[in-house]
Amino acid sequence: MSSSLKELLQQKINTKTKPIGALGMLENIALQVGLIQETVSPNISNPSIVIFAGDHGIAATGLVNPYPQAVTAQMVLNFINKGAAINVFTKLNNINLVVVDAGVNYNFESSSFSDFFIDAKQGLGTKNYIEENAMLPKEVESSIEKGKQIVADLNASGCNCVGFGEMGIGNTSSAALIMSTITGISIEECTGRGTGVNDEQLNTKINTLKIVFNKHQLNLLKDEPLELLCKVGGFEIAMMIGAYIKAYQEKTIIIVDGFIATAALLIALKMEPSIIHNCIFAHTSGEQGHEKMLQYLQVVPILNLGMRLGEGTGAAIAIPIVQSAVAFLNEMASFEQAGVNSI
Amino acid sequence: MSSSLKELLQQKINTKTKPIGALGMLENIALQVGLIQETVSPNISNPSIVIFAGDHGIAATGLVNPYPQAVTAQMVLNFINKGAAINVFTKLNNINLVVVDAGVNYNFESSSFSDFFIDAKQGLGTKNYIEENAMLPKEVESSIEKGKQIVADLNASGCNCVGFGEMGIGNTSSAALIMSTITGISIEECTGRGTGVNDEQLNTKINTLKIVFNKHQLNLLKDEPLELLCKVGGFEIAMMIGAYIKAYQEKTIIIVDGFIATAALLIALKMEPSIIHNCIFAHTSGEQGHEKMLQYLQVVPILNLGMRLGEGTGAAIAIPIVQSAVAFLNEMASFEQAGVNSI
Repeated sequence: MSSSLKELLQQKINTKTKPIGALGMLENIALQVGLIQETVSPNISNPSIVIFAGDHGIAATGLVNPYPQAVTAQMVLNFINKGAAINVFTKLNNINLVVVDAGVNYNFESSSFSDFFIDAKQGLGTKNYIEENAMLPKEVESSIEKGKQIVADLNASGCNCVGFGEMGIGNTSSAALIMSTITGISIEECTGRGTGVNDEQLNTKINTLKIVFNKHQLNLLKDEPLELLCKVGGFEIAMMIGAYIKAYQEKTIIIVDGFIATAALLIALKMEPSIIHNCIFAHTSGEQGHEKMLQYLQVVPILNLGMRLGEGTGAAIAIPIVQSAVAFLNEMASFEQAGVNSI
Repeated sequence: MSSSLKELLQQKINTKTKPIGALGMLENIALQVGLIQETVSPNISNPSIVIFAGDHGIAATGLVNPYPQAVTAQMVLNFINKGAAINVFTKLNNINLVVVDAGVNYNFESSSFSDFFIDAKQGLGTKNYIEENAMLPKEVESSIEKGKQIVADLNASGCNCVGFGEMGIGNTSSAALIMSTITGISIEECTGRGTGVNDEQLNTKINTLKIVFNKHQLNLLKDEPLELLCKVGGFEIAMMIGAYIKAYQEKTIIIVDGFIATAALLIALKMEPSIIHNCIFAHTSGEQGHEKMLQYLQVVPILNLGMRLGEGTGAAIAIPIVQSAVAFLNEMASFEQAGVNSI
C-alpha cells in the first residue's frame, strides 16, 4: 500500500536534521501547506495582501465609533500614498499589496489611483442597519462575485498565498454582530473597543448593537449567511467572503488576519466549510472577541502581539513565518544527507 | 523643560496613522530599540546570529542525552554545509550567520572551514561535572574574552543586532543546573526533555542533575557566576556570556533565543544587570523550564511556537518582527502628514 501524502510529508519533516517536533508550529504549517498544494515540495509564490475598504451607514451616527467616517477614505489615500502600517510591512516582507474600494463613502479621483488600487465600488457605504438592512441581496451577491474575481486575477498573476485585510470605520460592529449570530456568544462578549472607544462609548456601542440584534432577529440567522450579510454586513466583508471562497477553490494558502477578517470567515465557512483547511491564522488580535472567535473555530494562530489595527497587518507580519515553514521543508538536510546520527 | 527621549519616541509612535497602541508589542519594541540606540530614528543593520558550539563531558555518560556526543560536531559540519534549520532561516530572512567552535570534541579539518566559521576552540569539550569541575577558571575567563571579541568584530563590520544560538549535546543539563541555582526553582521544574528523552530517561536526567547540584553545593553559588560556570557551565555558554556583555557595552540590540541562551543570560545579568535593557526575547521555547525562566525575568517574548531546536532558530524567526517594529517607526506617515483625522 502506498503512503498517503500526509504520511510522506510527516516522514519528510521527521527526517530533517532536528529532534522530532523541535520546530513546533512551523512543522504543522509545513504539513498544512503541503496538503493544500498536494505536494511534498510546496512553495509560496507572490504572497499578497488584499485590503477591502468599505463604509458603514451606522458609522455616521457616531454611536459605535470614535473616529469620523471620513477616516475610511483618508486611510485609503494613505494606503495609495504608501504611508500606512500595511505599506511598511508589505514592503519590508516583499509582499504584494492590493487596495480595493469595495464601497467607500467617497468618490476617489482617478488621478489618485495607483497600479495597486482596484475600483470595485458597490456603493457609497452601506445603509444604517439601525433603520434598515445594510445591503440589498443583489449588492451582497455582486460584492461576493467581485471578491472572487479579484482573487482569480491575483492567482492568474502567479500568487498562491493571500491574506485579506480591511479598512472601514464602524466595521468592528458588523463583525461583532456576525460573531454573536453565528457563535451564539453574547453581544457584550463579542463587542470590543475597535479603534479605541472609552468605557462610556463602549456601553453605548454594546447597547446599540443589542438593539440592532433584536430588531433584525439575528438569533434566527445562524445558518442564513446571505440574509445575515444583507442585514448587518458590509461591502468589504461580503467581498472578503467571495475572496475566501475563490482562494479555497484555487488551492490558495489563506492567511487569516484579525477580528473582521475572521468574522467574514465565519460566514464563508457557512457557505463552504472546507475553506478551513486552507486557513493559516496569523494572530490573535487585541480586539476583544477575537480570541473567543478563534476558540470557537478551535484554531491556534501564529502570533499574539496585541495588534488590533486591521489592514491585514497581522497577516503581513505572519507571512515570513509561513515562508520559514515552507523553506525548512524544502531546504533543510535530512539526517542521511548530512551524515548526522539520529536517535 | 525638554522632553525626554522616551517621551519623544512615545509621541512619534502615537502620532502614526493608527489608533493609539494598535500595533501592540511592535510599539514596545520600537520604543526599546530607540532607547538602546538613543535616537527617535533607530535602524537595524546587518542583523546576525552567532552559534556557539561546545561539548559537555557529562554527555559521554549517556545519563542526560539520547543523542550521542558526536552529533555536536556533525551538526557543526551541517551548519558549515548550510543544511541546518538555522541556515534556512537566516538565508530567508537575510541574516548574517556565524558559527563558532567554542569547544567541540572534534578536530575539524581546516578544509571544512568556511568564511562564516570561527575557530575559538577552548578544549575538546568540558570535563564531566559528575566527577570534577567542568572548566578551569582560566578556561571560563578566556571563553568570556573570546565571546566579547567575536561581538566586537561583528559590530566593527556594521552589525548592530545580534542573536546568540548554541549547539552542544547535553547543554540543556548545564542550563537546568544554572537556572535552578540562580532562580531557586527545583531541579525537577528546570529539567526538560532536551532533544527528546523519554520518561525513563527524563527521570535519570533529573536524578543525575540532583546529584550534581548537591555534589557541587550549587545552592551556595547564586551570586557567584564565575564559580557556577566553572562547576557546571560549558564553553559555548561562557562564550555567550561574554558576547552578551560586549553587545550591551556597544549598544547592540540583543535577540535572546531559547532555554540555553536564556540560562547564559541569567549568569550574564549577575555580572551586568543592565544588559536586560538591550534584550528582546524572541520566543518561549517548547523546552520545559524556559517559560518559568522568562517569568523569573518578568519578560514577555515575541513568539510562542513550541520551537525547541536551539541554533538561534527562535531568534532568526523573530528578527523580521523586530525589523517591522523599527520600520513602522521610521516609515509610517503621521496623521498630519497623511491628512487623516485623529480622535
